[in-house]
Amino acid sequence: MKPNDFSRLLDPRGVAVIGASEDVRKIGGQPIKFLTEYGYKGEVYPVNPRYPSIRGLKCYASAADLPQPCDVALIAVPGAAVPQAVRDCGKAGVPHAIVLSAGFRELGERGLPLQADLDAALAETGMRIIGPNCQGVMNLHARAYLGFGHSFSNPNLKVGPVSMVTQSGGFGYSVVSNAQREGIGFSYVFSTGNEANISSLEMMAYLIERPEVEMLVTYMEGVTDGRALLALGERALALGKPVLVWKVGNTRAGQRAVASHTANLTASAELYRAAFDRGGFVPIRDIDDLIDTLHAFLGRKLPKGTGVTILTTSGGAGVLMADRCEEVGLTLPLPSAESVAMIKPIAPDFASIGNPVDVTAHFSAAWKEYNQIIRTLIADPTVDQLIPRSIGGANSEAWCAELLEILKTTDKPVIVSQNEPPERIQKTIAMLREAGIPIITTPARCAVAAGALSAFAAKVRAWRDRRPMQARPVARLELDTPGHALPAAGGTLGEHRSKVIVESYGIPITREVLLSPAEIGRLDRLPFEPPYAVKIESPDIPHKTEAGCVRLNVAGLLELKSVAREVEENARRHAPEARIDGILVQQMAAGTEVIVGAVDDVVFGPVVMFGLGGVFAELLQDVTHEFAPFDVDTAHRMIGRIRAAPLLTGYRGKPALDVEALAQVLSRVSWLIADHADRIAEIDLNPLFLRERGIIAADALIALKPAG
Amino acid sequence: MKPNDFSRLLDPRGVAVIGASEDVRKIGGQPIKFLTEYGYKGEVYPVNPRYPSIRGLKCYASAADLPQPCDVALIAVPGAAVPQAVRDCGKAGVPHAIVLSAGFRELGERGLPLQADLDAALAETGMRIIGPNCQGVMNLHARAYLGFGHSFSNPNLKVGPVSMVTQSGGFGYSVVSNAQREGIGFSYVFSTGNEANISSLEMMAYLIERPEVEMLVTYMEGVTDGRALLALGERALALGKPVLVWKVGNTRAGQRAVASHTANLTASAELYRAAFDRGGFVPIRDIDDLIDTLHAFLGRKLPKGTGVTILTTSGGAGVLMADRCEEVGLTLPLPSAESVAMIKPIAPDFASIGNPVDVTAHFSAAWKEYNQIIRTLIADPTVDQLIPRSIGGANSEAWCAELLEILKTTDKPVIVSQNEPPERIQKTIAMLREAGIPIITTPARCAVAAGALSAFAAKVRAWRDRRPMQARPVARLELDTPGHALPAAGGTLGEHRSKVIVESYGIPITREVLLSPAEIGRLDRLPFEPPYAVKIESPDIPHKTEAGCVRLNVAGLLELKSVAREVEENARRHAPEARIDGILVQQMAAGTEVIVGAVDDVVFGPVVMFGLGGVFAELLQDVTHEFAPFDVDTAHRMIGRIRAAPLLTGYRGKPALDVEALAQVLSRVSWLIADHADRIAEIDLNPLFLRERGIIAADALIALKPAG
Repeated sequence: MKPNDFSRLLDPRGVAVIGASEDVRKIGGQPIKFLTEYGYKGEVYPVNPRYPSIRGLKCYASAADLPQPCDVALIAVPGAAVPQAVRDCGKAGVPHAIVLSAGFRELGERGLPLQADLDAALAETGMRIIGPNCQGVMNLHARAYLGFGHSFSNPNLKVGPVSMVTQSGGFGYSVVSNAQREGIGFSYVFSTGNEANISSLEMMAYLIERPEVEMLVTYMEGVTDGRALLALGERALALGKPVLVWKVGNTRAGQRAVASHTANLTASAELYRAAFDRGGFVPIRDIDDLIDTLHAFLGRKLPKGTGVTILTTSGGAGVLMADRCEEVGLTLPLPSAESVAMIKPIAPDFASIGNPVDVTAHFSAAWKEYNQIIRTLIADPTVDQLIPRSIGGANSEAWCAELLEILKTTDKPVIVSQNEPPERIQKTIAMLREAGIPIITTPARCAVAAGALSAFAAKVRAWRDRRPMQARPVARLELDTPGHALPAAGGTLGEHRSKVIVESYGIPITREVLLSPAEIGRLDRLPFEPPYAVKIESPDIPHKTEAGCVRLNVAGLLELKSVAREVEENARRHAPEARIDGILVQQMAAGTEVIVGAVDDVVFGPVVMFGLGGVFAELLQDVTHEFAPFDVDTAHRMIGRIRAAPLLTGYRGKPALDVEALAQVLSRVSWLIADHADRIAEIDLNPLFLRERGIIAADALIALKPAG
Repeated sequence: MKPNDFSRLLDPRGVAVIGASEDVRKIGGQPIKFLTEYGYKGEVYPVNPRYPSIRGLKCYASAADLPQPCDVALIAVPGAAVPQAVRDCGKAGVPHAIVLSAGFRELGERGLPLQADLDAALAETGMRIIGPNCQGVMNLHARAYLGFGHSFSNPNLKVGPVSMVTQSGGFGYSVVSNAQREGIGFSYVFSTGNEANISSLEMMAYLIERPEVEMLVTYMEGVTDGRALLALGERALALGKPVLVWKVGNTRAGQRAVASHTANLTASAELYRAAFDRGGFVPIRDIDDLIDTLHAFLGRKLPKGTGVTILTTSGGAGVLMADRCEEVGLTLPLPSAESVAMIKPIAPDFASIGNPVDVTAHFSAAWKEYNQIIRTLIADPTVDQLIPRSIGGANSEAWCAELLEILKTTDKPVIVSQNEPPERIQKTIAMLREAGIPIITTPARCAVAAGALSAFAAKVRAWRDRRPMQARPVARLELDTPGHALPAAGGTLGEHRSKVIVESYGIPITREVLLSPAEIGRLDRLPFEPPYAVKIESPDIPHKTEAGCVRLNVAGLLELKSVAREVEENARRHAPEARIDGILVQQMAAGTEVIVGAVDDVVFGPVVMFGLGGVFAELLQDVTHEFAPFDVDTAHRMIGRIRAAPLLTGYRGKPALDVEALAQVLSRVSWLIADHADRIAEIDLNPLFLRERGIIAADALIALKPAG
């Protein structure tokens, strides 16, 4: 789907400031100053009935009087006046607004009436807005500073290929300031505030398509449309553009803080992690981390494999960098014999030519030879990316100038590890940054940045290699018999009714029959081969075992009859009001227990969960999630993600289990919940018995959403 | 044990420089300059036969001529001349040397002859040395710069309560430089080089006792004496002084790098982690981390509980700090009702008074009220430590001055979270640092530092609360019968012989009898109640199952006889040369499988490992280690550390197992290996069956070290 076009919001030919002021201490005063003094070339239209002019510009009494073209209205009037301002802008034909004013949903209950009025004004006018309660927007190409606050007061912000969309204006713009101090330039910055109309995801979906935007950064507290997040991640992989995502509100305490900071719905951290993992996202955990990773991507080269080669003049720094490289999933291949043969004669005796290649401190002065080693390593096919330590001292700049020439010849990423305090090699740092070669301060941070490059490159490769999504594996459920239909009412279905639905999606269930107590009383022979599990069938008794309504290993006819009576009596005693649909007589099954569940998540939509039964899923939380629907290949990848996966494929001489059948079940459950996400809230298949051949669901539970 | 006294090495009355030079580009030239120009008050004795004087100081032809008192010789001659220099120093009565020269063990094979000569010289003279191949020593109190290199060239290094001992001179001193730039002062710094004589652990054991040393930092590649590491950690807890430990060589790649960087033996990362965990160590992962954590401890206050209270003016910064606080094990208690009642009237409407206490950016100007909130929170009993965000802008210094007055009244740690680039609040930062109040740059880094304080404080509390080590729970093994004695030869013992030894330590084993094939042939009744496991007993067939030498569930006399024959035949076929000690007839046992193992680790000595059987230990690596010997209380803590521990204590309605019996076994195994660490290399009890009452070892294997 093509994203909405926000080019005129990004690059307005004219900007109105509603609530304009001469006074730069006022929120309506600052943008007038920025737009007139910082190089913006478009028209500026102050709006304020109290002044005839502001800073020499004609001042309009009402937004309704605005001339055209005016692509953006910056609204800085008190909250209560915002809906009227929107209506006025709509009359004048202004298509977009950026609402800085507060007083809406962020106040909770109290803000809802004004929010409703704003929503109505938007519906009437068709305007698209950023905010309310945001800090504003920057287009640094056009020098359009459409906002307020400390970061906006710097006229010299550098232009670059990074764009940022932030759900916290204050924090987001402080990140922009920090990154700028480290020489990182931005193209567009959006503080999205309450996201009453344009969400951060909608804006990112637009920005990522723009050719001058090479990478996105987002500070995210939560999204309301998890599927749009997945689509953005997919698009990032297709375009090869990383989306650096700083997600907060991940832990219990963090979530509480988010809930009181914005009104966003927050889905569980696990689903966000899964979404980031599947798409072209690069998770970020701190400001340093963000800046280092941006520098690494600004090198504009991606590694072809997971290896990293460390070239150091300090054994200690090399060792700890190696540690951290492995921690972040990088491998440390040894240099080729050719490289070793080249390096050995020029390195000191006691140098250690492995990975790290440690040529020792005695080598720092020999910068020409050092560059020769870099040249050799870059040409070495074992090298995917290279982290050489910088050379300081008197030769630093000469070393660097030659290094830059060498690096022009390679498409392998090179991250320079800074060996000295920045003030001692300022010129070298500037030269490297100018040329787009990342230089990063500590060994550990180099490793983290290299790991981010490598992980993103691997995801892009996997995305490109992936076969096109298979055709839909199962047909839509035909609900032609009453037994198979989803009931009109909501609530939990009994086991047998749940299984009938599950079975209609081609998922094997235990052989079983639902009989009335009277039918069981009349039986003159066993319905099929015992032993049986005998259970109550009732939508009102979801926890049958605890209610004494399950009996296992029932073998004879008389036993069956007496057990059935007992189960029914226990049910009546446990829940006198319970609707009883019958007695379920079921063939006993065995195998390795697995659990498959599905929920329709409020943010991410239908999601399937998988784990091994017993203690693995619950106690050890060894489970994994996938977004429904998905194909059998995806299901296989899902199975491989749990820690206990080797148990399924022939662990220590045990026979391999039927993983293909399990993958089929996972995919089919994903279609079941996806087809019926409007009705099904939850599915539980627990346990499924997985065997050397085949799989069978021994219990199932489907919970429907409230009807209507 | 009292550590060796190094006070004269630390604070020498006179220093000789062997291989002294006028030329500061030479290693022997630099210390002469430092010792004469940087404020050192003791005597300086250059030694070099080629000069009559250096820098106006009388130059001695040989170290043998040195006058007294001369407490330290700094040796900077070529490696080959070092042993003679040591002998000369010994003659002159110099007790200590710092050997900067290289050419010893670090060269591998080639360096061993010179190393042996140095060792001999040390044995002859009784001198104690730092190095060889080190960068030197600093005593900043005495301005004694006893080394070379970039960091030594700064005469203004600040004195402070931190001491550092580093196994990488270059990297260690670069850390000192970095920390100095952040205002952190040091008392003593030791680069220990090859540790041919004084180890870093020996030096730390001395330093931690000195009252002016309040915290230690160490960069560690590996130690040879794990028990000394444990003792240092214990002492750190007793003194309440943290040891910040930056351990490298933790991963596969890191270990390879260490092996080629120094000749240190490296025990497994898991044992180091366990040692750090038990003692007063604070693990460090990067330079930033080190500096932040030092700042936090320099505040000289420890929290009384695990809580942290965040006071912020930025919702975004607060949320992400909350996330990270939880990640590092901190809790976020809500402020008391009294605090909320105080804050509510002065905070803006839309402030969120939870944890974080977010008073919003609109509050930044109201610094007096902000301090009033800090005062209230500090007095709040729910607050263990507080992280307020700094106030920038024009009022920053006034705010800070008042804050410092407030903080004088509290013993709770307060870490200020820096809200602006350092250059904008330079004065405020200086004021806080001067007063010993930590100010840290990013929200995430504040959380990490607060977490380090909290974790260290918790360990100190636990150490103080711990009951005195119980009396030794089991008596030393009396080897009075041949069957119980450890054999004179090395190698693996058969199952039955292993079990006899295990049983002599009070560990229950299966009922069993070892019979010869002929004895089994002559049996006229079953030896005890079946069913049996029947196994070969042979020291040469440790993997009996794979060899077809185990049969289970043997019930009758005839079956026993035929199975015994079959097992013996399989053994002869599998290993024709194997010594066969008999056929083991063993009562079958059942229960929950657990695994207990023990090894005599080359670095850490006897260590016991525990995990659940089946897939838990092997596949999920859910195991834990403890240093032997240990008491039953320690064993209980050990059991509680595995992730699957809830399975033992009545998980989901299952009966609780006999954890006390398991703890007894763990402690007894720890005594078994500790008593016989000279002979026993490994013990494996796998499986032990743990039941509701009791525990029983169903298989055991003891491997002895080679004899002699």
